[in-house]
Amino acid sequence: MNYRMILYLTGKIMLIGGGVLLLPLAVSFIYGDGCHWAFLASMGIFMLCGIPAFFKPKKTELFSREGMIIVSLSWILFSLIGGLPFFLSGEIHSFIDCFFETVSGFTTTGSTILRDVEHMSKSLLFWRSFTHWIGGMGVLVFAMAIFSQRDARTTYIMRAEMPGPKIGKLVSKWQFSIRILYGIYIALSALEFILLLFGGMSVFDSLVHTFGTAGTGGFGVRNASIGYYNSAYIDYVIGIFMVLFGVNFNVYYLLTARKFLQAAKSDELRIYLGIIAASTLLIALNIMKMCSGFAEAFRYSFFQVASIITTTGYATADFNMWPVFSQMILVFLMFIGACAGSTGGGIKIIRVMILVKSALRELKKTISPRSVVSIKSDGKALDKEAISGVGAYFIVYMLVMFFSILIVSLDNADFTTTVTSVIATLNNIGPGLGAVGPAGNFAGFSALSKLVLSVDMLAGRLELYPILILFTSSVWKKS
Amino acid sequence: MNYRMILYLTGKIMLIGGGVLLLPLAVSFIYGDGCHWAFLASMGIFMLCGIPAFFKPKKTELFSREGMIIVSLSWILFSLIGGLPFFLSGEIHSFIDCFFETVSGFTTTGSTILRDVEHMSKSLLFWRSFTHWIGGMGVLVFAMAIFSQRDARTTYIMRAEMPGPKIGKLVSKWQFSIRILYGIYIALSALEFILLLFGGMSVFDSLVHTFGTAGTGGFGVRNASIGYYNSAYIDYVIGIFMVLFGVNFNVYYLLTARKFLQAAKSDELRIYLGIIAASTLLIALNIMKMCSGFAEAFRYSFFQVASIITTTGYATADFNMWPVFSQMILVFLMFIGACAGSTGGGIKIIRVMILVKSALRELKKTISPRSVVSIKSDGKALDKEAISGVGAYFIVYMLVMFFSILIVSLDNADFTTTVTSVIATLNNIGPGLGAVGPAGNFAGFSALSKLVLSVDMLAGRLELYPILILFTSSVWKKS
Repeated sequence: MNYRMILYLTGKIMLIGGGVLLLPLAVSFIYGDGCHWAFLASMGIFMLCGIPAFFKPKKTELFSREGMIIVSLSWILFSLIGGLPFFLSGEIHSFIDCFFETVSGFTTTGSTILRDVEHMSKSLLFWRSFTHWIGGMGVLVFAMAIFSQRDARTTYIMRAEMPGPKIGKLVSKWQFSIRILYGIYIALSALEFILLLFGGMSVFDSLVHTFGTAGTGGFGVRNASIGYYNSAYIDYVIGIFMVLFGVNFNVYYLLTARKFLQAAKSDELRIYLGIIAASTLLIALNIMKMCSGFAEAFRYSFFQVASIITTTGYATADFNMWPVFSQMILVFLMFIGACAGSTGGGIKIIRVMILVKSALRELKKTISPRSVVSIKSDGKALDKEAISGVGAYFIVYMLVMFFSILIVSLDNADFTTTVTSVIATLNNIGPGLGAVGPAGNFAGFSALSKLVLSVDMLAGRLELYPILILFTSSVWKKS
Repeated sequence: MNYRMILYLTGKIMLIGGGVLLLPLAVSFIYGDGCHWAFLASMGIFMLCGIPAFFKPKKTELFSREGMIIVSLSWILFSLIGGLPFFLSGEIHSFIDCFFETVSGFTTTGSTILRDVEHMSKSLLFWRSFTHWIGGMGVLVFAMAIFSQRDARTTYIMRAEMPGPKIGKLVSKWQFSIRILYGIYIALSALEFILLLFGGMSVFDSLVHTFGTAGTGGFGVRNASIGYYNSAYIDYVIGIFMVLFGVNFNVYYLLTARKFLQAAKSDELRIYLGIIAASTLLIALNIMKMCSGFAEAFRYSFFQVASIITTTGYATADFNMWPVFSQMILVFLMFIGACAGSTGGGIKIIRVMILVKSALRELKKTISPRSVVSIKSDGKALDKEAISGVGAYFIVYMLVMFFSILIVSLDNADFTTTVTSVIATLNNIGPGLGAVGPAGNFAGFSALSKLVLSVDMLAGRLELYPILILFTSSVWKKS
């Protein structure tokens, strides 16, 4: 284990953290809300943690393990120090709450412990939403884009932070195109921002909601979430952009490279859009009695489906009040999540696709034992390693869920709240059902539960292994 | 597909069904409760369905597919005709309720639609519990034991009905020892019956509860289940026998063959007992405040843990009232279930063990990519086919759960009731939480939900594939 290299690279990322705080600092000066001291102090701490970046080690070797540890360490430090402005400004009193809120931001979860978001200072609200935008594309990918370190070393860091299973050529393409991807990310964000302004939203609100949509995070500035604006135009703009940010960015890459046919061939994309269409229709029919007609039912259904499958978490309706059938569809969408290589969370469409295909293959084998059926993705057969990797991922995922639910259940909240609070954080969604529903919040949990749910958010965003590796003793042994 | 052979063998099993009804018929005459006509008519229908058994086909070839179809057909017919006495006697008015109750019996689930069990006729109560005893060891295994057909043909039938993954030599041993296994089954049942008599239980009640324990079913004759007797002795006798019937019968086979060392080496047995010990302790500590002391808490905790992990479903306490932490442990035990090759249901300890081990292997591989770790069971490495088979089983299991929950949710019962009603039936447990908790019942569901839950019970008992194969179009195509 190359500890010096871990310190060196983590230090570099901390310097970025300090730099990023310049933006909310500027917002604080513009609005004169008095929070600038809190941001300046936090910047100082980021810089102190960045000192190791000035001592480059001689041995610069890096392997998968080091990559994962750098990623998880950086995310934890970012959340700890990034949470300081809330604490130092005195607007959130408990430090664990500040940590929870910032983890929720960077991991693009959007679960909140705030009971009343409308009375927070503007600069803090800006920072809270900006963490979504940074976290969506990846804190470290962002750092790498700035440092332009595209050598083999950084591959391991990319891999650890990038969402989705490591199948085929996607990864090798990614690492050479971080800047193109960031270009697409910025362009899409800019487009949404402009469209929201057209809808009559203020500049500040448009900016904040663009950050929340792009990162598929879900933090807003209104207690009633997007429901506050009560505008079909805004609902559809944000709804459609949530769906767009849930698409595998590789598809956009192919589009910019004019490989339209290859982009259209994506199995994952077609399943993703198919699930959205089917769920929207089923829920719309199910909630029609509660609405003025099919158009309204469709509008609410589409927004909530888009928000949950992309794991954003914005709401225009309190689905806690919907029939259980609609709630169940949403709970299942929480598990499925968005496409791999998007800013969304969850298990990811491609994993679910591989799991279902491999299970169906087993069923066919049971019927005709001598049949050989290969599992294909985008027309190519997948190798056994990839398939068993996805299977194992799913089991580890269920185990993490199991232990988290057990610890959170010690708070003795009701069954629905306990179970969905873990599902909502582990899948980086935001709201669950019961007390943590769209109209509720996470303030009522104990500090232990908040810590566990924070770890779940990190584990969900970093796809389990980088966080689990920290708890593995053999990693810390001297070799 | 050899349809004639399917008809021929299914016919034979129907004749057994008619014979089995002689016992409750005798009980009806003893108590003079007037239900004898209902039993006689049902026997007649069994005999009519048995007519194909007198026309032996020329081609007697049988393959895996035919074996599975015979098993699922027989179980469905047994439940349809076996439910007639309840209907014809007029004591259960709706036929879907009779079907649900009988499926629940044969599959050893123990979920009931009866609001008041104490006013039923004795012979019907006897028949209801006797279905547990038959279903526990397997309807078809029972038939084969009587017909003494031990040739290669019947292997496929055994395989389809026997619980647990098909690993190593277990299966080949099983088929030559059906009679020994039934011997052990009868001996253990007799022992429990005698011990219950010693505890002051009436002959009828002792018999019924022995059936319920041996099959890990859970039907009783009191509205308050075992809690009615309020006796620590009876609690511990039934509790310990539930645990004993949840053990892989191969262990008993080894004991009778005096292979003590080999029996003690069973990983599955040790994990099974370890989980019971840990869960009992955790729950006892958690519910201590609600009890008079640790001894009472331990007694209630042990009984409920034994009842749920073995998927029996007897209750001495309403765990709906327990803290959510204890409820969560019980819900997880519902999934795990008993040992393979026992009368219990659930995913089975050995499958969970293999799933967890394969996931941990993947985690190790991620940390040190060049490491090779094999997955062992009882000291022997498992082949890849077995491991991927278990993984696929788990996914299919989750898919069945997903679609069942979705259909049942149309009834718009609350979240907890909807989810746990499916978990409780698919794992053949009996009670769930909420409205289907230990003090509740399944009467409130719609006919559609009752049908889905019945299919779940069958799918759970026959381990998915034999039931799913019925819905597969390619099976019914002419080849």
